[in-house]
Amino acid sequence: MVSKSMGTAADAEAAFYDAIARADINVLMALWADDDDIVCVHPGGSRLTGHAEIRASWEQVFERGGVHINVSRLHETHNMMTAVHSIVEEVHQAEDRQPDVHVIATNVFLKTAQGWRIVIHHASVAPGRAPSHQPPGTVLH
Amino acid sequence: MVSKSMGTAADAEAAFYDAIARADINVLMALWADDDDIVCVHPGGSRLTGHAEIRASWEQVFERGGVHINVSRLHETHNMMTAVHSIVEEVHQAEDRQPDVHVIATNVFLKTAQGWRIVIHHASVAPGRAPSHQPPGTVLH
Repeated sequence: MVSKSMGTAADAEAAFYDAIARADINVLMALWADDDDIVCVHPGGSRLTGHAEIRASWEQVFERGGVHINVSRLHETHNMMTAVHSIVEEVHQAEDRQPDVHVIATNVFLKTAQGWRIVIHHASVAPGRAPSHQPPGTVLH
Repeated sequence: MVSKSMGTAADAEAAFYDAIARADINVLMALWADDDDIVCVHPGGSRLTGHAEIRASWEQVFERGGVHINVSRLHETHNMMTAVHSIVEEVHQAEDRQPDVHVIATNVFLKTAQGWRIVIHHASVAPGRAPSHQPPGTVLH
């Protein structure tokens, strides 16, 4: 079940990554808006739309277990009914080694009658290493 | 100047791609929300935030002239103040040859006091050829 404390978009985003870490497909899918036009793009992947395609893709991911993703460097724009999050994802799957992939994700949440729900998750691979271990604004020289 | 007919998110998106085609940096930048947390990700690129970084990136793109992008396959979720667009971009630069890159873009527009403005443009390269010349739902056999 989705937590009843889903009072903000940040709560919904935390629940999203928690469900991915636990490979909990039912909780994960319950966090999406009830809309055929929801969109998910995995890093390097094609566009998936609607609950059936998106569920199938995560079931495939979860065949290898949960994926631990640390989220950092949030940039947010929002209004009363919408939160647009841009984040950097540190992805750890299987062995707990240093992430060597730099993934940028856009997550958009809309406030629905059922609470905050995700409508788009668009992740892509960026060049170079993730800047996750540098605090924002650090000058290295 | 930005057209006064910017009454919908679709108008803002049309103006966005029109400015890119004409390499009009001032119109392009006027379409973004007045917010330091705006985000732009070019295909295969890193995350750019804020007006200065985003402007500099498009100025660099426009050194080779405008970029003609045909937009297709819109999936949209929205509320009164927000439009979340997922599209496929057919990109034509310089020579007018067939696009061989399959680009997916997420564009999010918020309704501001100044009208509909873009807050995030996240483009990424997907595998294979763009499905642009197949009408949605076409069965090929």
